[in-house]
Amino acid sequence: MRQVAWVGLAALVGTIAFMASASGQTDGEATPIYGVRLPAGYRDWPLISVATVGAPVSDMRAKLGNDVAMKAFRAGTLPFPDGTIIARLAWKQTTSEENNRALGPAAEKQLGPEGAQKLLSQSFVAGSALNVQFMVKDSKKYASTGGWGFAQFDDGKPADEAVLKTCFACHSPAKDRDFVFTRYSR
Amino acid sequence: MRQVAWVGLAALVGTIAFMASASGQTDGEATPIYGVRLPAGYRDWPLISVATVGAPVSDMRAKLGNDVAMKAFRAGTLPFPDGTIIARLAWKQTTSEENNRALGPAAEKQLGPEGAQKLLSQSFVAGSALNVQFMVKDSKKYASTGGWGFAQFDDGKPADEAVLKTCFACHSPAKDRDFVFTRYSR
Repeated sequence: MRQVAWVGLAALVGTIAFMASASGQTDGEATPIYGVRLPAGYRDWPLISVATVGAPVSDMRAKLGNDVAMKAFRAGTLPFPDGTIIARLAWKQTTSEENNRALGPAAEKQLGPEGAQKLLSQSFVAGSALNVQFMVKDSKKYASTGGWGFAQFDDGKPADEAVLKTCFACHSPAKDRDFVFTRYSR
Repeated sequence: MRQVAWVGLAALVGTIAFMASASGQTDGEATPIYGVRLPAGYRDWPLISVATVGAPVSDMRAKLGNDVAMKAFRAGTLPFPDGTIIARLAWKQTTSEENNRALGPAAEKQLGPEGAQKLLSQSFVAGSALNVQFMVKDSKKYASTGGWGFAQFDDGKPADEAVLKTCFACHSPAKDRDFVFTRYSR
């Protein structure tokens, strides 16, 4: 239950998770409920936007989109067309000692020692990879969940049914934007 | 001077800024010193990684790479081959009331009201776009700066010479990784 609640929480901020559309190549095992497989090549998709969730989740996120998604985001097309896939990657927030050493002197010159310390303590790079989530649009197949199928993979392994059951409810507040919280960042 | 110091500081954390290589299409006006132009289509490049710098910079950053860069990052190739271009996009950290309203109930269930408040206060999405920076590898053309040319554009307009003079010095601590701080996030 604890895990399920966290997943629902994580899924909510920013983006979500979905399977590969009929048109796209996919890899590996399918998720429960939505039957989503890892879309091939998603790691090369363009960036939609970035986000972060505070402690104790303490992650850094990037949302990537396939061609259909990118066109729709950029044109402001709503609802998203069938074939849209949005990927949410996430990593643990990590302090880079190396970056902070290099950044320190300039920060101190500007802010003094205390100010620099504050800035550095809030500066993060992406650490270890967390799960990957997808939203896949197929208005017929997923008619009962707003036209979206949701997926989550941990090291390529699909999340279980209990996890995936939390996705749609959390996305409902974004109904007027076709259940997608993320906005495109130019 | 104040602006220059900030730029140096901002450039330091994560990635940097560079012009288009001889092989790539470019747009608009060239930067001083390095003669770098905005690489055409950089906004569609794949993601290398993400990062954030604390207050008062309070930004969220994404590093994107052209094909040469992505191959080198993924293979761990050092030094980066000529033709490598790394883009650093940045946005102001912004609180999404909409996300937080949706995230709130699950956060409260897990963390209680105080814990949820803390999590939400540290949760950000990308707000207004800040400048865009590039690092372009050309070992002959930029031999005096480690083989890298640096660039920064504000709304498409190249930064001035004083700004660009700060780039290389700040990257020197990363000399053993060919002056690149950013690491690839799988």
